[in-house]
Amino acid sequence: MRQSQLFTKTRRDAPSDEVSKNAQLLIRAGFVHKEMAGVYDYLPLGHRTLQKIIQIIREEMNALGAQELSLTALQDAAAWTKTGRFDDEVIDVWFKTALKNDTVLGLAPTHEEPLTNVMRDHINSYKDLPCSAYQFQTKFRNELRAKSGIMRGREFLMKDLYSFSKDAEEHDTFYAAAKEAYKKVFIRLGIGDKTYFTYASGGSFSKYSHEFQTVCDAGEDLIYIDEATGVAVNEEVYNDAEVFVASGLDKEALVQVKAAEVGNIFTLGEKFSEALELTYMNAEGKPQNVFMGSYGIGPGRVMGVLVELLSDEKGMVWPESVAPFAYHLVSAGNDEAVTEYADALYADLIQAGKETLYDDRDARAGEKFADSDLMGMPWRVVVGKNTLATGELELVNRATGEVEKVTREALLAR
Amino acid sequence: MRQSQLFTKTRRDAPSDEVSKNAQLLIRAGFVHKEMAGVYDYLPLGHRTLQKIIQIIREEMNALGAQELSLTALQDAAAWTKTGRFDDEVIDVWFKTALKNDTVLGLAPTHEEPLTNVMRDHINSYKDLPCSAYQFQTKFRNELRAKSGIMRGREFLMKDLYSFSKDAEEHDTFYAAAKEAYKKVFIRLGIGDKTYFTYASGGSFSKYSHEFQTVCDAGEDLIYIDEATGVAVNEEVYNDAEVFVASGLDKEALVQVKAAEVGNIFTLGEKFSEALELTYMNAEGKPQNVFMGSYGIGPGRVMGVLVELLSDEKGMVWPESVAPFAYHLVSAGNDEAVTEYADALYADLIQAGKETLYDDRDARAGEKFADSDLMGMPWRVVVGKNTLATGELELVNRATGEVEKVTREALLAR
Repeated sequence: MRQSQLFTKTRRDAPSDEVSKNAQLLIRAGFVHKEMAGVYDYLPLGHRTLQKIIQIIREEMNALGAQELSLTALQDAAAWTKTGRFDDEVIDVWFKTALKNDTVLGLAPTHEEPLTNVMRDHINSYKDLPCSAYQFQTKFRNELRAKSGIMRGREFLMKDLYSFSKDAEEHDTFYAAAKEAYKKVFIRLGIGDKTYFTYASGGSFSKYSHEFQTVCDAGEDLIYIDEATGVAVNEEVYNDAEVFVASGLDKEALVQVKAAEVGNIFTLGEKFSEALELTYMNAEGKPQNVFMGSYGIGPGRVMGVLVELLSDEKGMVWPESVAPFAYHLVSAGNDEAVTEYADALYADLIQAGKETLYDDRDARAGEKFADSDLMGMPWRVVVGKNTLATGELELVNRATGEVEKVTREALLAR
Repeated sequence: MRQSQLFTKTRRDAPSDEVSKNAQLLIRAGFVHKEMAGVYDYLPLGHRTLQKIIQIIREEMNALGAQELSLTALQDAAAWTKTGRFDDEVIDVWFKTALKNDTVLGLAPTHEEPLTNVMRDHINSYKDLPCSAYQFQTKFRNELRAKSGIMRGREFLMKDLYSFSKDAEEHDTFYAAAKEAYKKVFIRLGIGDKTYFTYASGGSFSKYSHEFQTVCDAGEDLIYIDEATGVAVNEEVYNDAEVFVASGLDKEALVQVKAAEVGNIFTLGEKFSEALELTYMNAEGKPQNVFMGSYGIGPGRVMGVLVELLSDEKGMVWPESVAPFAYHLVSAGNDEAVTEYADALYADLIQAGKETLYDDRDARAGEKFADSDLMGMPWRVVVGKNTLATGELELVNRATGEVEKVTREALLAR
C-alpha cells in the first residue's frame, strides 16, 4: 500500500488521559483510536495486525477440529437466570440494556450459557460427542476502571472455544490437545519463549484452571515461573501446597515476575450442562450431563502485550507473523530518479507477493524514518541517491537495528 | 468436512414463533439459531456462507480503494449530541446502556459520528482527500418488532463505507464508482438480474438517495421497476414528478413489485462534518467542510434474501459463490465397498481443492438426500452400489434438479 493513500497519520503525542504504553504507541502510530477508556477503534494498520493474530488462532483452532460460529452480543435473561449469572452481584461487569417493551437484556461478557443452549438442539447421543466450537466475538465488560489500553477493554474481541465431552476422561484428552494448540499459537505470535503455562484457581469441577501468562511489566498478574520447564504458578494459588504436587514444580526454585494473561483454559465440568439440561444418551440409553470446557484468547490483548514487550524508545516492533506489512519501503529524498526507482521496486515487491507499505510521501527522509520506526514494520528498505549509483538497497532490521546492503534481486528473492 | 463431525443437525420443524421463511429454513438446516426475535447466532454452515458474502463485498470495497477498519459498538454521547442524534426521538432504535458511574452510552445503530470524529485526527489538508473507509460491524437497532428473520435484525452485521471528499464534484465521482462496485457485488452474489438501482428519498444535501432493491415477495418495500434499464423508483418518491426527470424513467412503463433493500448509498454532504467540525485546508489555505457519503450493505440481510429468493419446497438453494460447500458428497447405503469408494473420492475432492461436505453418516439414503436438499449445496455427488459397477457418479444440480452421470475423473477435472 502506498502511504500517501493511507488515511491515518502518525502524531507526536498520545491523548493526555492515555496512561498505558501500548495505547500511547498504537494511537501515535495511527493503529487505533480511543473512543473512551477501554474502548478502542482499530484503524487500517491496527485492523490488519488484529486480523493476522485472528488468522493464526483460527488456523490452530481448526487444526484442533473445532468449528467456527458466531453468537450474539444481546442476551435475554432466561438461560443466565438458570445458572444464576444474570445477577449483577454474580457477574459484576454486565452491561444491561432493554427492549422497547422494557425486557431487560444483557450484552454478553462471555458465552457459556448461549452456546450450551444452542447445543441442546444438536447433542442427543453419545455419538454426537466429543465436539467443540469457537468464535471471534466482541465481549462487553463494564469494568470500573480501564487503564491498560487494549489489554483490558470494556469492549474487546475474544476467541472463545468451548468443548463438549462425554465424561472427564474424554474431556482431559481434548484439554491436553487445546493446551498444545495454545502453545503453537503463542509460538507463532512470537511470544512462545516468554509465555508460561500457569496453574491458577479452578472451579467446582477442577482444582486448578490454567492460564497462559506472558512475562511483561505491564501485566496485572504476579506469577512464579520455572524457566526450565516453561511452567508457572499464579500468586493466587502460590500458598496452596498441593499446586506443587499437581505441577511438579519446586517452590524454592521459582522466580516471581509480573505477567499478562494472554489465554486461559478451564474445566467447566457439568456446571452449565446441569443448570441448562444439556444431556446426552449414553450407550446404555441413560441420560448423562455433557462435560464441558472453555478456552479463551483475547486477540486485542495479545496485540497490546506484543507492543508492551517488543517496543523500544523509537516505537513499536512487530513480529513478521502479525506485522501490518512485512516491508516498509522508504524513498529517501524527492529526487525524481529515486522516486522512479522506488516506484518500480514497489511494483516488483507487490508482484513478488511481499506485503509492502511504501512511504511515497513528499516528506523529509528523517521524518519518514521516524514514522517507520514508530510504526514498526520488521524490515525497512531504503532507496536513496546512493542506490542509483551502486545498485544497493539498505535493508534495516527494525528489531536489531542491523543494516544490510542488498541488491534488488537479492531482496526480491528473499 | 465430514458431516458426521459437523455438530449441527437438521430438524423437521422451525420454532413455532418463527414466521419468516428465511429463518425457518436456516434454522431447520442448522445454519442459524434464534436467540430472540431479530437476534440470530450463525452456526458453522451459516457462518461459512456469511463469511463468503463478506469476502465478496470486501474485495469490491478494496478494489474501490477503501480502507478497512473496525469501530466500536459502545458510544458515548458527545459526538452524537453535537449532531442531535443521541436523542431517542431522533433515532428511535437506540439501545442504551451505562457505565458504573451512570454515564449513559449507546450501542451504535450506525457509525457516521464516530468515524467523522476519527477523521478529525487524520484529515488536515486538501492533499488528504478524497479517502474512504469501511468496516463489517455489528449494528444494534431496537426495533419494536422483528419478524423478518435475518432480513431485519435487532443485532446484525453491516458493511458500512464512508467517503470523504473535498466537494460535491469529487464526491460525485466516488459515488458513481461506489454504485458500480455495488453492482459487481450483487452480480457476484447471484442476484444481479433481480436487483434494481432505485431512487429513494434523500436528505438535506441531495434530493434523492439510492437503494439497491432486490425483487422479492418477502421484501418490505414497494418499488416501481423498469426491467430494460434495471432502474427503479421507490414508492416513497413515486408521486414526485421530478424523480422521473432525474432517473429518465417513463412513469407509465414501470411495474410495481415487492422488493427487499439490500444496499443503499447516500450523499451526506456537510451534515456531519459541519456538526463535528471535520474541516480541511483548501489549496488557498481556507478551511472547508469535508463532503461526505455513506454506503451500506447488510451481509445477513443479503443472505436472508438469497434464501427467500432461491429456495424451493425442498429447502435452500445456494449460489456457488456463497454456498458453505460447493459439493455435497453423499454415500448411499451402508455397503462397505460404497463407503470405501466415497472415502477415497472425498480425499481426492479435497486434494483437488473442491470444498466438499461429505455425508458419511450411518443413515438411510432417503434421509441423506432430504437433508442435502434442505441444506442446498449447489452440487450433490452420489456414490451408490451402481457406482462400483459402472464407475459412474450421479451429479445432481440442486437448482435445476438435473442429473448428470459423470466419471470420477470428469468430476475431479471440473
